[in-house]
Amino acid sequence: MEERGLPWEERYARLAVIPEGATVLDPGGSACGFSLKHQGAWLFFLPGVPKEMQVLFDSFVLPFLVGFAVGGDYMRQRTLRLFGMSETQLQEAVNKLGEWQEGVCVGFYPNFPENHLTLTLRGQDPQTLEEDLDRLTAALGREVGEVLLGPGTATLEELVGRQLRKQGLTLAVAESCTGGLICHRLTNVPGASDYFQGGVVTYGNQAKMDLLRVPGETMDREGAVSEATVKAMALGVKEIFHAPLGLAVSGIAGPSGGSPEKPVGTVWIGLATQKGVEAKAYRFHGSREEIKALSAQTALDWLRRELK
Amino acid sequence: MEERGLPWEERYARLAVIPEGATVLDPGGSACGFSLKHQGAWLFFLPGVPKEMQVLFDSFVLPFLVGFAVGGDYMRQRTLRLFGMSETQLQEAVNKLGEWQEGVCVGFYPNFPENHLTLTLRGQDPQTLEEDLDRLTAALGREVGEVLLGPGTATLEELVGRQLRKQGLTLAVAESCTGGLICHRLTNVPGASDYFQGGVVTYGNQAKMDLLRVPGETMDREGAVSEATVKAMALGVKEIFHAPLGLAVSGIAGPSGGSPEKPVGTVWIGLATQKGVEAKAYRFHGSREEIKALSAQTALDWLRRELK
Repeated sequence: MEERGLPWEERYARLAVIPEGATVLDPGGSACGFSLKHQGAWLFFLPGVPKEMQVLFDSFVLPFLVGFAVGGDYMRQRTLRLFGMSETQLQEAVNKLGEWQEGVCVGFYPNFPENHLTLTLRGQDPQTLEEDLDRLTAALGREVGEVLLGPGTATLEELVGRQLRKQGLTLAVAESCTGGLICHRLTNVPGASDYFQGGVVTYGNQAKMDLLRVPGETMDREGAVSEATVKAMALGVKEIFHAPLGLAVSGIAGPSGGSPEKPVGTVWIGLATQKGVEAKAYRFHGSREEIKALSAQTALDWLRRELK
Repeated sequence: MEERGLPWEERYARLAVIPEGATVLDPGGSACGFSLKHQGAWLFFLPGVPKEMQVLFDSFVLPFLVGFAVGGDYMRQRTLRLFGMSETQLQEAVNKLGEWQEGVCVGFYPNFPENHLTLTLRGQDPQTLEEDLDRLTAALGREVGEVLLGPGTATLEELVGRQLRKQGLTLAVAESCTGGLICHRLTNVPGASDYFQGGVVTYGNQAKMDLLRVPGETMDREGAVSEATVKAMALGVKEIFHAPLGLAVSGIAGPSGGSPEKPVGTVWIGLATQKGVEAKAYRFHGSREEIKALSAQTALDWLRRELK
């Protein structure tokens, strides 16, 4: 605030000023920071914008800290993404593994709706460390099975996309309670247009009939949130987008709209493939946005497992 | 990790252990933390899960800090959301306001794609503080105009929803490069089904023709990312969802798909109302996800201004 009086030229100029003896941290093309040692302590000054801070932290601060921490040793860390197991179950699974006794440090990071787990190793030989991480990852995979979203850090939508591309398949999505989140996640992946045909967000019943060709009597009889309707939605979206795969979600995200028979969190997911159409029912808990997130994640995860 | 050997009952039991003399911070229904004074310093211990930490921080830590900081005084803070002005332009606008000399503390928080601004006041009378905040907010509104997203903290999708509800209008959305993000944001608002009819995510040109009735020759002549196509998309989605309002976006989110004439970041937005159809062209910069976010935000903001 003390800068308020200054002309903007001077405020801009100030952005380029650094203390005597400081080292400029220049990522190139983004905001700079600087570091200096003061009274025996290393100080790092980074921009306030999270994205700019992150770049400098990853490229300057973290390497400094690692080198500082491990001395001449090497350090390797791997982050694994898991979905479909509570943190406690995951802890149990980790404890079952004998390999953990060899100085690996395990970190648990709940990252709704996923759980992320970091494996950190130190040693003299980077090659050996990578091999150990591969071995640990494989061992964990044997313990938790499909809950492990691949050996790497790829997102669920990236994994689905890779499988679709590999198998030369395309996908269309019909969303009710997820409201477009599944399409949004799929299209965050560069090149998604190669395998994602498109989707329909049908909030109203009329749109389910007009666009997805869900029979009116089906919705009258079973309701919009039902096995019959979600199956018809999956088949309908598959058909109108001329895609071999159709994924559909219909549920009650809340906070209103629930009933004793179908409380908030009731979600039907349907998957139409060349083999036919299946549907599964779920009961999720949480806020509207959490139920949307869980529904989208569960639908994409079903597709990932189906494509394996 | 030292807990690894313990049976789970004991690990659970440990979660309930607190140091002697500590005060339990119990939000009720969520994870607890505790605080204690040690060697003259207040220490707060909160859960690691961000959502659980936030609850305790907001309900225990922050009030403590505020009381600690202002002594017997009252403190009132308001967060304002702005879109359509750079942080520097915003700073300029803030500096133009004479009212700022009365001991208000202004905080700038870039919150892509918005800028958030906090106004903090201290004084003896809470009522006066609220009135001062109202006056400051109004003054800023006069300075920045429609860039200020309302006087409160409502999100852009909430503001659009309120206007639609108030005017008894419904909306349908056709998304290409935003890939479902606009529908996702609109449906994050409870009760959105009252005014949001639904949407179509048309990634392929065939779907634009089949579902949105965009004439094939239009896309052959002008391309999928063009004024003519996005206008046809807005009119098409308005028609198929029987809605008085149709919003459409077609662009190149990248990283591939650009050309010299239409580089990555080229985005057309179309809005069909009862008065007719309009379209605007934009050139955004950033990553694929940033261009998606900017396109969705700009489309929703156009609708917000249109509905005023």
